[in-house]
Amino acid sequence: MDSPTPAVTLQDVADAAGVSRATASLSLRGKGRFSAETRQRIEDAARDLGYVVNVTARNLRTARSGAVGLYVPDHTLSFRYYMDVAFGAVERAAESDLLVTLMPTAFRGRSAITEQLDGFIVVDPVDGDPVVERLLTGRRPVVSGEHVPAGLPAPWATAYGDHVAGMRMLLDHLWERGARRPACMLPDPSMAWGREMAEGYAAWCAEKGVSEQRVLGWFDTTMDRVRSSFQELLARDDRPDSIVSAPEGMALIAVEAIRAAGLVVGRDVLVASYVDSDALAVTDPPVTSLDLGARQMGRQTMDLLADALEGRVERRGSAVEVPISLVVRASTAGIRTETEE
Amino acid sequence: MDSPTPAVTLQDVADAAGVSRATASLSLRGKGRFSAETRQRIEDAARDLGYVVNVTARNLRTARSGAVGLYVPDHTLSFRYYMDVAFGAVERAAESDLLVTLMPTAFRGRSAITEQLDGFIVVDPVDGDPVVERLLTGRRPVVSGEHVPAGLPAPWATAYGDHVAGMRMLLDHLWERGARRPACMLPDPSMAWGREMAEGYAAWCAEKGVSEQRVLGWFDTTMDRVRSSFQELLARDDRPDSIVSAPEGMALIAVEAIRAAGLVVGRDVLVASYVDSDALAVTDPPVTSLDLGARQMGRQTMDLLADALEGRVERRGSAVEVPISLVVRASTAGIRTETEE
Repeated sequence: MDSPTPAVTLQDVADAAGVSRATASLSLRGKGRFSAETRQRIEDAARDLGYVVNVTARNLRTARSGAVGLYVPDHTLSFRYYMDVAFGAVERAAESDLLVTLMPTAFRGRSAITEQLDGFIVVDPVDGDPVVERLLTGRRPVVSGEHVPAGLPAPWATAYGDHVAGMRMLLDHLWERGARRPACMLPDPSMAWGREMAEGYAAWCAEKGVSEQRVLGWFDTTMDRVRSSFQELLARDDRPDSIVSAPEGMALIAVEAIRAAGLVVGRDVLVASYVDSDALAVTDPPVTSLDLGARQMGRQTMDLLADALEGRVERRGSAVEVPISLVVRASTAGIRTETEE
Repeated sequence: MDSPTPAVTLQDVADAAGVSRATASLSLRGKGRFSAETRQRIEDAARDLGYVVNVTARNLRTARSGAVGLYVPDHTLSFRYYMDVAFGAVERAAESDLLVTLMPTAFRGRSAITEQLDGFIVVDPVDGDPVVERLLTGRRPVVSGEHVPAGLPAPWATAYGDHVAGMRMLLDHLWERGARRPACMLPDPSMAWGREMAEGYAAWCAEKGVSEQRVLGWFDTTMDRVRSSFQELLARDDRPDSIVSAPEGMALIAVEAIRAAGLVVGRDVLVASYVDSDALAVTDPPVTSLDLGARQMGRQTMDLLADALEGRVERRGSAVEVPISLVVRASTAGIRTETEE
């Protein structure tokens, strides 16, 4: 009997293509900066030799599917923040040879695929969502983007933003620019960040001795309702001298409402968005905001999940902070003082 | 022997929850507008009775996994256009109880998952991409977003934009607003839309008897290189009086370069972007662009793939057009005439 054909190694592919082992490895994983010709030569050599990319062998050994699930609240599918989180996660996943299956809330079936996913990321888990509970009580590792609601089993690890501190950062900036009566449009309190924003706002107002002026900014409210909430707010005798808004998009409506009331954005009423977006950087005036590091949130949750899947336990049970930073723009130039008027 | 327990039906769940069969069905699929209480009651009834959501049964019957792959060029992962396509596809997939697995180009392994996906969508297939070829020669249905490169097997169906016509629409608009020397920044010609844009530009210039002024706008070029290309263009004696740019983001650099040259955007030099984005609507001046219907492209490709998976053959082999529309804004107000100066 013939001895079994020895397995084709990465070195064989490299030799056939006339490149180093490292170059062959990187190129086959779509990494490194090589010419299209070099990549093609390596691909051809791999195909001709019947080289099996390692990840397959590894998955066969460990009975893993090589794909993870990303559970995203579907009422948020058109928000840039969540798109950035998702694409950050996909980008990081590719570095660990993992595929990402998007699981929007609207999907209530149990696909055969979900049973085979190696782990899950839940983004902005909502109170009382049965899918989040099912995933957290299952046997696959789950990493949470933002803290999971109270009463549920802890995830393998969490990546989070400190939204109490984020809110404070934004309010302190408004204060420094002369605002004394900030109103706040708060997102859905069924998610951790919405609760933390509200908490940060309440604590800050108590400290400064100013009254709270809250507007609720539910994801599924209509633009018309948001517009009229702002209009009512600005028509009050004790109208706010500044507005913090969330989620994204709301700041542009605030700007419009302030103008319609005959007031100047950045001088009579300051505007700051809790969530940054491309549009806020270039609108007139550009709008001050918080960069919540959405892409970084996606990368970080996937980084933690890769740890879990690869048996690295150092960060098990940990909560890793995703930094929030203030982006100052002209919409918070500063309240006009009397001498200026 | 006892007779086998009869299967729990949707009607049983509806009866137990005290709702109609339709309400139970919608609620279990996360659809319809019901109170959180009603949803919970239905979920509880389904769980208590051990009701199996239909999709599982259907998938078991047909040996399908209930998930499809979306292959996206990874050098485009940070472009809004592709994010919109992806989320449009995810949204439409959920309506057919399908999950979507994102497969970026960077993923070169062969996950066990990809072998089980029921079908694939390839977005902007690139010339010579071995994965596109492998998918098209495989046994699963493939729907293409934009035409596949010549020489490959035809996909099950195609959704496409008519970029020759799109380019002409934009150039005709510039002409009508007084521009006679439009320069064009063209994207990667290894993709169908890049080739079609170039073709549309060449044909239009030949018809009007004007010379082409091309700038190549590769996805992986640096912003600095793009900036200096625009600067060189504007410093020429026969400088263009209008610029069409692609991909997204490039128009903002054009605006900046025109200003830096001491010229007025929309009056001395018109600017139009081939790809619309949120930022272009609110920048100063707002920039004229084409709405390529990215989300619609995602929905349409998934709609065709759902047909393929559900055995509806009417549109097999068809090419469905995704409409392109012109969004006119101040950046193409009109070339200043001599009497105005």
